[in-house]
Amino acid sequence: MDFTIDTATPAVEQSFAATPDPRLREIMQMLTRYLHDFVREAAPSIAEWNAAIGFLTEVGQWCSDTRQEFILLSDVLGVSMLVETLNGHEGGTEGTVLGPFHMTGSPKRSLGDSIDLLGGSRLCVVSGTVLGVGGEPLAGATVDVWQCTEDGFYDVQQPDVQPAGNGRGLFRTDEQGRFWFRTVVPCHYPIPTDGPVGQLLDATHRHPFRPAHVHFLASADGHEDVTTHAFVAGGAHIDSDAVFAVKKGLLVDFAESTDAELAARFGVEAPFVHARFDIVLTKRA
Amino acid sequence: MDFTIDTATPAVEQSFAATPDPRLREIMQMLTRYLHDFVREAAPSIAEWNAAIGFLTEVGQWCSDTRQEFILLSDVLGVSMLVETLNGHEGGTEGTVLGPFHMTGSPKRSLGDSIDLLGGSRLCVVSGTVLGVGGEPLAGATVDVWQCTEDGFYDVQQPDVQPAGNGRGLFRTDEQGRFWFRTVVPCHYPIPTDGPVGQLLDATHRHPFRPAHVHFLASADGHEDVTTHAFVAGGAHIDSDAVFAVKKGLLVDFAESTDAELAARFGVEAPFVHARFDIVLTKRA
Repeated sequence: MDFTIDTATPAVEQSFAATPDPRLREIMQMLTRYLHDFVREAAPSIAEWNAAIGFLTEVGQWCSDTRQEFILLSDVLGVSMLVETLNGHEGGTEGTVLGPFHMTGSPKRSLGDSIDLLGGSRLCVVSGTVLGVGGEPLAGATVDVWQCTEDGFYDVQQPDVQPAGNGRGLFRTDEQGRFWFRTVVPCHYPIPTDGPVGQLLDATHRHPFRPAHVHFLASADGHEDVTTHAFVAGGAHIDSDAVFAVKKGLLVDFAESTDAELAARFGVEAPFVHARFDIVLTKRA
Repeated sequence: MDFTIDTATPAVEQSFAATPDPRLREIMQMLTRYLHDFVREAAPSIAEWNAAIGFLTEVGQWCSDTRQEFILLSDVLGVSMLVETLNGHEGGTEGTVLGPFHMTGSPKRSLGDSIDLLGGSRLCVVSGTVLGVGGEPLAGATVDVWQCTEDGFYDVQQPDVQPAGNGRGLFRTDEQGRFWFRTVVPCHYPIPTDGPVGQLLDATHRHPFRPAHVHFLASADGHEDVTTHAFVAGGAHIDSDAVFAVKKGLLVDFAESTDAELAARFGVEAPFVHARFDIVLTKRA
């Protein structure tokens, strides 16, 4: 054994050769190759390597029951989006990042309920249908939604604000695959910047904003889940999402409606803001 | 903006384009390319990505004042050795890993002092000269040494064992550049396996042992520091160090000496184990 720049990679790859799980073996050997190639090209000084270790340690130490700084790091490096996209299903609604705020269960709500428990100023109805790829409505599908307040805060960021569960709801589609709920028009907001990821954005002169969106996690028996957003088309920062989550197919018009009949169906009064977002799920393989 | 597998990498690279520090910009853009290429080739499932996030989070959360699990992770992936080797200086003693146990300052000791404060059974003298590349002795050089007990534990792993500072010493070379100290023959030992890095080794059927060694961090005015080990030649696991730190040039005979004159010079009685380890420092650029 004689460690050199050239023997390093085969030596570490070889050390994983006896891994019983073939997928773990493949991943660890692949990671070794990419990580070593990166380190050889970057050729960090000892001080730079120490800084990297310190940064990763701090990221881990910022994680708590209500904060996942490593997901945030993965998000701002575009890795979460890559993984989500690599796991997409042809023909279904496109996926996007889960984000760091899906850490508490959404309360079960009835169709038409409001997820705005704080009395926001700009009433909005979000409605849609969960469909199969052939256009067949999926009754009894689960639609988990979460979003920030009009001021750009998720409930978990404001634990002292009551009632709990603001901006969240777990809905079940009706016989025609439909869901609808009342809320406020979502606002663009910054990702948390008080931790090491915020320091990274600051040091690299990147802004921390995410364009306005409502999170969706939809699932139905026999179908693949989809984790996605409905983005407010034309909203601020829509072209420079801090976590790269915007896909053209997810842009939704949040437009004022004066349709009294529609308003009555949703149990609101016109005018109201209406956003329509249908979700297509592919059959499970 | 439309995120796809193909637009991902240029989009994230571009986001770092305004970074004021050119080195940070270079590193972040390079990291983006390698990380994305790795993710595209590995194509992790959402569950695998979650497992990776959970693993890194746990590594961060295991870190404390007396435990650096991220350094340990870097060590077992051969990255620490790569960085150390990339920062080596032609003509000087080869470097090797700092390891996770150089977290407390070594107590200043006089030449000939023992760093074994617990009364180990196998007396050993380690001696050497700190030299420049031309062979000139470096007087007043600092030699920081640390090692485990005969049972394979560093002092920081046994905070309840007194006196503190066992196995550590900060020495200064004499007029002829020499240093010598008494200790015990170091033992091979496992890296800490009670954390996530230990779980990784377990899952990949890698053993956690490091071959026996004494750590050195040597420095002298006008010269580059070197962080290295003296390995006990022929010791257990010398061909399969869990952190890949072994280099041929760092193998040292820890041989029994019956030389009474030498023993007298070191203030011990023959027979004793003697290890000679000279350290060559290059001039600072």
